[in-house]
Amino acid sequence: MSLLIVGSIALDNIETPFGKVDHSLGGSAIFTSMASKNFCKSSIVGIVGDDFPKKHFELLAKNGINTEDIKIIPGKTFQWSGKYNDLNKPETLDTQLNVFSNFDPLLSEKNKKCDYLFLGNIDPILQLKVLQQMNSPRITACDTMNFWISRSKEALLEVIKRVDILFINEEELRMLTNIRNIFKAVKKVKKLGPQLIVVKRGEYGSFAYTNDFIFFAPAFPVEEAVDPTGAGDSFAGGFMGYIAAARNFEESTIKNAMIFGTIAASFNVESFSVEKLKEIDMNDILERKELLEKSILF
Amino acid sequence: MSLLIVGSIALDNIETPFGKVDHSLGGSAIFTSMASKNFCKSSIVGIVGDDFPKKHFELLAKNGINTEDIKIIPGKTFQWSGKYNDLNKPETLDTQLNVFSNFDPLLSEKNKKCDYLFLGNIDPILQLKVLQQMNSPRITACDTMNFWISRSKEALLEVIKRVDILFINEEELRMLTNIRNIFKAVKKVKKLGPQLIVVKRGEYGSFAYTNDFIFFAPAFPVEEAVDPTGAGDSFAGGFMGYIAAARNFEESTIKNAMIFGTIAASFNVESFSVEKLKEIDMNDILERKELLEKSILF
Repeated sequence: MSLLIVGSIALDNIETPFGKVDHSLGGSAIFTSMASKNFCKSSIVGIVGDDFPKKHFELLAKNGINTEDIKIIPGKTFQWSGKYNDLNKPETLDTQLNVFSNFDPLLSEKNKKCDYLFLGNIDPILQLKVLQQMNSPRITACDTMNFWISRSKEALLEVIKRVDILFINEEELRMLTNIRNIFKAVKKVKKLGPQLIVVKRGEYGSFAYTNDFIFFAPAFPVEEAVDPTGAGDSFAGGFMGYIAAARNFEESTIKNAMIFGTIAASFNVESFSVEKLKEIDMNDILERKELLEKSILF
Repeated sequence: MSLLIVGSIALDNIETPFGKVDHSLGGSAIFTSMASKNFCKSSIVGIVGDDFPKKHFELLAKNGINTEDIKIIPGKTFQWSGKYNDLNKPETLDTQLNVFSNFDPLLSEKNKKCDYLFLGNIDPILQLKVLQQMNSPRITACDTMNFWISRSKEALLEVIKRVDILFINEEELRMLTNIRNIFKAVKKVKKLGPQLIVVKRGEYGSFAYTNDFIFFAPAFPVEEAVDPTGAGDSFAGGFMGYIAAARNFEESTIKNAMIFGTIAASFNVESFSVEKLKEIDMNDILERKELLEKSILF
């Protein structure tokens, strides 16, 4: 089953206590697709400028990621510049939307038929537009951020109402609900529509919340985190990739997807850009799965 | 098997967003003993002033907690006044050591023979003094705090070297090691001596670290947290109580102890003082254990 991923494609300038990169491949659609590559084929819908290096297209293609619906237009690719003083929260130094300000996701006939959809963190108006174009997806998911919660809440609530899965972090959950207690907040958001809420808690892991169960996944214990950029998108990639491969949405599938999302995020933070994600294979993933399971089960 | 608990006994003045109490029963030895009461008998070694209400002694006795070695001397009992603006970190408004400044833990012959020892957060010089009086305990554990790490590091390192279990939170772990990454930091502290390090992560739960395994326990999802005072001590109480009852220190015992510690802490935060801890029985504990296990296992 193939996974459709709609989101940003960026050339990032990032500085962390562990190094610095310029114009490195990034953006939500990139991290999500590269993290899902070990589980399923995917297609990206996005936009880049004519400065976007050809080698990046080659990398994606090599990993079973269809790039036909990445539009190339004259101009510069979206650029994000950020600095992490510790690894918890970036300081945005500069955001240059460039061609991304013209993003208007139009799906090909093939993409409309995808069974699984992940809407990365983009304007909820565009997320809605994608949802409206889909034929009859099995499972749809979205991510968002504080910016859209404050600037475009109405459209965002409409997106949340329509998707099966909402990926959200604790800060966003509190902002969306005005509720401080995270378990009360998630209960309220659950009533907005999605079958499943995945709450991301950074270095503390994540939990899944449905009407039937709650499931906690600790973060994989990483000793050499280098750059957390894209950790949430990578989590979503591992999660959605596994869901698409499993072809069902049962409790045990969701729990395993949480573990695979956790592992994808753990590899992601060990390098800048997608350096680590591009290297790993299923054996690397299963090795961490075994370790993680040992640290949970008793 | 009985558990010896050495620590503070206090009359707390606490304000949280959910209420306010004055002169309420608190202190590390109180929370730890009340949280262990469902698992084993315990003895407290501590000191109070002649203002300490008799009803508190009765409460402890009623719960199988031996108070013979709580010394009563003329003067006022230790008082801590704190305010929580949110539930994460208290602001200390006032600390009156009172008779606690004369605390000199002398163990009775009976207490020296206890198999299990918990040293609450007190001056490491006194913790050492207790360790030296013990005959041949099976398992010893200590807690500490930032104050002692900065003021009395040498004595604290000597305590850590001698105990089997160290309970420590993330901030203290970083302070003790000067290492930001929590998994690197715990590895370093492990080398200082203890068989087991229990890292407390507040609302995110805790993990156990030994040479053989790492085990993550999420916090029990509490929707109505009222006052976190004593959560760490209650965790230690549930943990040590179960260890003392199980009479072994195997991997599966430690993992179960983590769960029982987690559950004790969850009840503790649902009320001021020991109001909730004093009410619960083994059925309440096992009910939460079943829920918590469901949210971990898959």
